This record gives sequence, structure tokens and C-alpha cells, in this order.
Amino acid sequence: MSEVELTALREKIRDITKRMIILLSERNRVSKAIGEVKRRMNLPVLDEGVEVSLEREVVRLCAELGVNERTGLKLLHTILEDSRRIQGYSEGGARVTPGAVAAKARRLAASGKAVIRLDIGEPDFRPPRGVISSCIGALRRGRTHYTDPRGIPELLSALKDYLYEEYGCSLDTSNMMITPGGRFAVFAAISAIMREGESALIIEPCWPAYREILEFAGCRTISVPTSIEDDWDPDLEKIKEAIRESTRAIIISYPSNPTGKIISRELFRGILEIASDRGLTVISDEVYNGYAYKDCPSVLEFNNENFILTSSFSKTWAMTGFRIGYAVSDGKTIERMLRVSSAALTCVPEFIQHAAIAALESRREAERNREIMKRRVDIAFTEISEDPHIKVYKPDGAMYLFPVSEKPGFDSNRFAEELLEKWHVAITPGTGFGDYPRAFRISLGQSEDQIIEGIRRIREALK
Amino acid sequence: MSEVELTALREKIRDITKRMIILLSERNRVSKAIGEVKRRMNLPVLDEGVEVSLEREVVRLCAELGVNERTGLKLLHTILEDSRRIQGYSEGGARVTPGAVAAKARRLAASGKAVIRLDIGEPDFRPPRGVISSCIGALRRGRTHYTDPRGIPELLSALKDYLYEEYGCSLDTSNMMITPGGRFAVFAAISAIMREGESALIIEPCWPAYREILEFAGCRTISVPTSIEDDWDPDLEKIKEAIRESTRAIIISYPSNPTGKIISRELFRGILEIASDRGLTVISDEVYNGYAYKDCPSVLEFNNENFILTSSFSKTWAMTGFRIGYAVSDGKTIERMLRVSSAALTCVPEFIQHAAIAALESRREAERNREIMKRRVDIAFTEISEDPHIKVYKPDGAMYLFPVSEKPGFDSNRFAEELLEKWHVAITPGTGFGDYPRAFRISLGQSEDQIIEGIRRIREALK
Repeated sequence: MSEVELTALREKIRDITKRMIILLSERNRVSKAIGEVKRRMNLPVLDEGVEVSLEREVVRLCAELGVNERTGLKLLHTILEDSRRIQGYSEGGARVTPGAVAAKARRLAASGKAVIRLDIGEPDFRPPRGVISSCIGALRRGRTHYTDPRGIPELLSALKDYLYEEYGCSLDTSNMMITPGGRFAVFAAISAIMREGESALIIEPCWPAYREILEFAGCRTISVPTSIEDDWDPDLEKIKEAIRESTRAIIISYPSNPTGKIISRELFRGILEIASDRGLTVISDEVYNGYAYKDCPSVLEFNNENFILTSSFSKTWAMTGFRIGYAVSDGKTIERMLRVSSAALTCVPEFIQHAAIAALESRREAERNREIMKRRVDIAFTEISEDPHIKVYKPDGAMYLFPVSEKPGFDSNRFAEELLEKWHVAITPGTGFGDYPRAFRISLGQSEDQIIEGIRRIREALK
Repeated sequence: MSEVELTALREKIRDITKRMIILLSERNRVSKAIGEVKRRMNLPVLDEGVEVSLEREVVRLCAELGVNERTGLKLLHTILEDSRRIQGYSEGGARVTPGAVAAKARRLAASGKAVIRLDIGEPDFRPPRGVISSCIGALRRGRTHYTDPRGIPELLSALKDYLYEEYGCSLDTSNMMITPGGRFAVFAAISAIMREGESALIIEPCWPAYREILEFAGCRTISVPTSIEDDWDPDLEKIKEAIRESTRAIIISYPSNPTGKIISRELFRGILEIASDRGLTVISDEVYNGYAYKDCPSVLEFNNENFILTSSFSKTWAMTGFRIGYAVSDGKTIERMLRVSSAALTCVPEFIQHAAIAALESRREAERNREIMKRRVDIAFTEISEDPHIKVYKPDGAMYLFPVSEKPGFDSNRFAEELLEKWHVAITPGTGFGDYPRAFRISLGQSEDQIIEGIRRIREALK
């Protein structure tokens, strides 16, 4: 009896599956027709409004029919993705990432040209002496083995103390994990909490990595743009409006790369409140917290439940090439992030974890780095402000300037190319950080002399 | 006119989307009914046969209707995943991974117990002297910066020479990339060539990482089991039969972890030919090639087009805690893998890349490590073979034994637990490597004395 029943039910499944594929092919035909109409009417392929309303419809229908919402949204996004492909949409074509500029600058430098590198986000400082000697000591003592994926207990405990001193928050080591760099912390965060087809908000301009990682995870990036006219302050109403049914996270990062902005405690709290109301996780990337020139809030200071802090040893202690960072969140989220990191790479090199302990103790060096960077920010700001067509926000933190040219016809992609080829100065066009074709990023990771000479050439080239 | 047209077409899209969700809910109802029948009949939730025939149906229908095959398969797998969820299926519940054993052994050791660690796949050798001094030298020279995601040119060039000497194959540096460990090389390979819902073949027993990474990527793992009765040789016919419409890759790894098997050149070629006939990529994980005690083929020696070699410095040069490995493939695939690695983590620490150059030059140390390991394999094999109820394959390579107990009622999960708690010896149960509840893995990463004592206790416990 049951055998017969099972065969009949399976026949039904087969039939329903077929009908779904047939619907998909119908949908593709309609989608192709829409693509043609859009071409005729000169409309862009991507219509966010249509996607948002479809999402809403799907979520409503799923609730009504008792279908798992995440499955419904995933199905929707699989077919939306196919529609975009059919209509010939490709994401982020015009974006020039810092990585691409760096590769070009390296090639030029390799051909013997003395290029002033105001592109890469890497301080020229040496790591603290204690970091190097700690790393060497650990190598000599044979600290060259696998460790727990979370990190070695000594480092976790030192980090716990450090975060308590910095932000007054009592954490447990179960709230933390060590990662190979801040980028991997963001990667693990997104991989742990988001599924394909879901979306996250980013406040642009921002580090291109967020978009890259979201794309890698098959997730949609929803941009909330800010402008220099508003002093790069995000608008809470715009954030609220941008949230979709599929949205799971808001990614923020202050001090900001590229603008140097630090938002007020009130605004920070406002973002956390929106996230909390809508059940979203706030991923707060605080990689530049060591370079703050005014009071700088951390997500750790608020009593927010749903957050992931990502950070790194790279900037504060000039340890970019050590590839070590960390993440802080609730124990359950960290467990999920640990699964990502265990799957992808086991652990951070043992002796590098020992070097990181020394970094946490190198307060004086961190303070010195901050002071030097502040001086550079002041000088660079004064220099670039001389240009009458340039508008620039005076950085509250980080290690960049993000000037905007008001000259008609200015195109930062073209400008960056010309500047590199003719003037041998590398900068990153604004399009790497969002829809900012009139802006460009100057990194202050070089010596004062280099910065002054670089900006002199930038001003010449701007003429 | 066009506006009206667009609105009408969009209405159609909305309607089709709705109908798909309604079909999904119908499908769920049927799926639930199937789950109930299965429970009544005591059938397992997962029916591979049904899934395979659905895949075939979908691919046929996609071709007929001009639907993108990958989209069709992805849609199918989204709904199959939901069905499995509805029927209460959970993957890999009983698997005990080496990582889980290691965590338990570490806890026991931390409580003061002297545990013999025959679980972790890590040689107790120290890295070559030149590796340490090279790493220290690079640290002192300030080699602590970001590098090209592919790796530093000096290391790529040294690797190119090394692979030429080892396998006589002429590669270009565009065919290579440096990764933070062999695991990340596999991770990048799978992420680069596979999409959610697709599947890969693995030959079990094997390193659990393949399954973990495939699961992380939302892909299905298709196991092709081998048995000690066949000397762990895979059966080409079984491989052919296991390939599905959604299959994109075959993952192999010889010398094998855990069996120590090296397959013949003919069998290796046979696998490559099947892959080539069916348009699949062969991912050949050759991390134990430095520990081969007989002729060991590499994927680089065949004229196969569609392959990714993954390897590591961890085992050959005892550099586990350095987290450095590499991948070799065609230029286009490496480009795609570089995108994964750029998204997730920028690059491998610069000074560690310098250490790796020294490793490639440490031929003598590699040879010495191989000789010591061979001796351990011989001794351990003789010792464990004394047990009349144990069947064990004499390893051709690698650093493990994978004995199978023929005692009735033997359960390796229970045995491993008892062995650790009562006898303070850590091993890994066979279930970590596939469906092998009668087998367990003994790692030979410890000194001869420890191995002999450990096996003595294992034999006592087996009684």
C-alpha cells in the first residue's frame, strides 16, 4: 500500500518540478521582452523598485501559504539573477578598486619609475619593535604548529583585557575569535549570518571589500549613499527606506575609509536602533579606531545585542603584512563564524598570534603612529584645500583624504590614470568606493615629503 | 506605448513569480506526505536515486525549453534542500572530525593528563633551520607588507623551478598562486569552479575538509567509497556511475589521508580520462607527496587540461603553523581562484612567503623527514598487525595507519572515546573520513617511543 502511495507522491513531485521549470522558461521569455523594451526606452536593466516589490510579494505569499521565507526569497533571487543575465546586466563594470590601481602602480614601479604611492591603505611605519622580537622569539621557541581555530588562549585573554581598557566592556573569550586580517573577519561575518539572495546595506563611500564579499556570497548590496554636502553623515530616514525584506545586515565603518568621517554617538545609536527594530545585524568594521582624532564611538559601548565587531592589527600597529585581525560578537555568532574559518583555513599562524600579543602591549607605538598620522592629515588637508575647485572634508580619523572636484567634466577614473602615467602619482578614483566619479582617495601611508610632493603634482595635474 | 507594454510585461512577471511560490507550497505539502510515508516504512529521508533522476529530468527540460541549465539545477536544489529540511534530514550527524577529537584531547591535556596525540595530522619535526632563519631575516628586513594576492615573484619563481625539477613540467607563474595553507587552496578551488546546488565526487575514506568545504559552498558531496578488501583502490565503474548532471569535479588525494594508499599511474590516468570525457575538473590534493614510499604519480605529469593541483608546505617541511600552500591550474582558473582569495583575505604574510622559498631549497630536510616517517610507518604497521582482529593496509605514503577491526560489535566512535578517557591515547574514529565505523586513524606525527607506547595501549584497549 505505502509503496504505491510513495510512487504516486513522487510522480506528483516530478510533475510539480517540471511545471516550475516550464514557468521559469515562460518567465525568461517575458524577461527577454522586458529587456528589449528597456533598450528601446533607454532604461537601465536593474530596476530596484520592481525587485523590492517582488520581494515583498514573495514574503507575503510565503507567510500566507506556510512556505519557508528564506527558501522563497532564495528562489526569487535565483530567477532574478537569471533575468539580469538574460537582460545583459553586469555588476560594477566601471569600478576601479584600490587593488587594480596598486597592480598598475607596481608594474610602473617595476619598470624603473619612481611612483609616489598615495593609493594603498598601508601605513609606512614599521611594526613595534616588541612585535618583531615577539614573533622572532616564538619562531625560535618552535611556535610553528596548528592552534585552536579561535586563537591561542594567551592572545584571546590579552585581547579581552585590551577591549576592557579601551571600551570598558566585559567580554568573555567565547565572544572573540582571531582572524587572518580584518578582511577575513568581515568575510566570516557575512558568510555566517547571510545566505545567497539576501541583502546587506552599506553606507557609501566605503571600502570596496564589503561589496566584493557580498557578491562572493551571492548576496545583494544595497547602497545608502552619503555626500560631502552633508559632511558624509548618513541619513537615518534613507537607511530605513533602503531596508528590504531580504535585508539581514547593515555594514558601517567609522573612522571611514575613504572619507575620514567619524559619526556622532547619537547617529551611531540611531543606526543601531533601526537595526534592532528591524532585526538586522550591525557589522561594525572598526579597523581605523586606532587613528581617531576626536571622540570615536565603538559598537562595544552600546548595549546592542545584534552586532559583529571586526577589526585588525594592520593599521594601528602597522602590521598589514602579518594578516591578523579579530571579531567580537555573541557566542553563537562567533561559533558560526568559527565554522567558516575552520572550513577555509584552520587557524592564523601560531607565531603571528604571539606577535599580536606584543602589539596589544605596544600602547606607546600606537599613540605615536596616531600622532604622526594626524600631522599628515592636517598637512595634506591644508595642501589640497589650496585648490579652489576642490571640496574636502577634514578627516576626524583614518588615514585618507577624499577630495571632490567641482570642475565641470572632471572624471576621476581618467584623472587617476593620467596622474599615474604622466605624474607618477598613484591615487584611487572615487568610483572604487561607490558612485563618486568626481572624488578620489589620497592615502597618507607615505612620508610627509612624499605626501607634500604627491599633492603638489596632484594640484598641477588638476589645473 | 512602451510604458504600457512594460507595465503589462511586469504584471506577467509578478504573476509567474506568484505561481512559482504556489507550486513551491504544493511541493512542500507533497514532500511532507512523502516524509510521513517514509517514516511509516522506515525508509531514510535521503533518496539519492530520486534526486539523480530529477536532475536528469531538469537538465533535459532545460535543454528543450532553452533555459540555462545551471539556473534550472540551482532552482531544483533550492527546493530539494527545502524538502530535506521539511522531512527532517540533517547531514553528517554521526561524523567525528579530527578537529573535534583534537579539541577534546587538548582539554584533557590542559587538565594535566599526559595524552599521546595520535590524532592530529601534524609531524613533530621542526621546520628546516633555513626556513626559520629566512623568516626571521625577512621580519628584520621589514618584509611585513601587503603583497600581490598571487604571491611574491621570488616565491612563484622558486616554486616554478621546484615543480619543474620534481615533475618535469614547464609552468608559467600565471598557472600558480600561493595560499594560506592547503585547505584554503581547496576552498578557493571549489569556490571558483562550483556553484550552489552543484556536486563533486570524493573518494572515501578521505580528509573531511572536502565535505566541509563543499557543504560551506552549498554543494552536494557524492561519495565513492573504497574498501580495504580492494586495497583501497577506487573502482572506475563506480566513479562513472556516481557522476550526476550537476557534477562538476572529482576530488582525489594520493598519498591518501587516512589510508596511506597511492594508486597506480594507470588508475590515476583512468580517473583523469573519465573526468575529461564528462567535462569535470580533477582537484588533486597532493599535500602528502613529500611522504611517498613508492612511485607516486602527480596530476602534473599527465597531459590533462582540466585540473587543479592543491598542495602545501605543511607536511613535507613540517610547517603546519606557517599556514602556507599553493595551487596550480590553467591561467583562467587561477584568476578565478585569485578572486576568491582577494575577496577573503588579500595575501599570505610577506615574511612567511620568504620562509617558503627557503623550504623549497631544503631538499635534504625533506628527504630526512620522509625517511623518519617511513620508519615510523614500518614500525607502527608491524605493531598494529600483531592484533589478530585488525586488518590494515601497509601505507605507500603519507603519515597514517587506517586499521579496520573485524571484531563483532566494534564501534570506532565508542572505541576512540574510551581510548582517550581510559588510556589517554587520542586517535580519530573512521567515521570522520566516511562511512567507516569499524576503522580508526592513527597519526604518526609523534616520536617512535610515543607511537610504540600508543599502539601498545591501543592493542590493550582492543582486547
